[in-house]
Amino acid sequence: MATDQLSRTFAALADPTRRAILLSLRERGEASVAELAAPFEMTPRAISKHIGVLESAGLVSRGRDAQRRPSQLRVDPLIEIDAWLADYRATWEHRFTALDADLRSEDAHDPQEMT
Amino acid sequence: MATDQLSRTFAALADPTRRAILLSLRERGEASVAELAAPFEMTPRAISKHIGVLESAGLVSRGRDAQRRPSQLRVDPLIEIDAWLADYRATWEHRFTALDADLRSEDAHDPQEMT
Repeated sequence: MATDQLSRTFAALADPTRRAILLSLRERGEASVAELAAPFEMTPRAISKHIGVLESAGLVSRGRDAQRRPSQLRVDPLIEIDAWLADYRATWEHRFTALDADLRSEDAHDPQEMT
Repeated sequence: MATDQLSRTFAALADPTRRAILLSLRERGEASVAELAAPFEMTPRAISKHIGVLESAGLVSRGRDAQRRPSQLRVDPLIEIDAWLADYRATWEHRFTALDADLRSEDAHDPQEMT
């Protein structure tokens, strides 16, 4: 398995439960394992394992409170994905602009079709 | 392994060789397996396997030319990631705005430090 930061982030996000945990942390600010496990039909142990994957990827940090060890969302790896996407965003915006121009040019040649 | 589209996209992107293949396709428009394999110290067979993963995730489409079967980039799954990121983008922009306000307020209280 690839060990660079971007690969670890993508691998951590390739699971719907882990994405749901991140969403929950985004909304709550912080939460314990028990609080995060509540909406899922999963054991706290299974949720703990998912949090561990998120923590290894730097997407979650854990508090020092020995009892609760509350998790918090860390956005830095998501900012890195956003930067990676930027080149491709330019590509699809370019494609949409070209498609839009094609459609407009068809309309111009074929005014009857539009009425 | 999770089988929803977003999970398949993230899993396909969790490998630096596959991301390099996408970048190459973005720059070239289309390319054969041999052309894509050239910059890597990998067999065409290994590159073919990576292209297969990208194709399964909908990130690459293959041409019908039986000899070359050129690959092309498909941006739809990347647009889906971009939409998924949108909520988190709001979160980090909010955090940066708050941090910026904190720094400005510190400057205002401590003008000596800045000179």
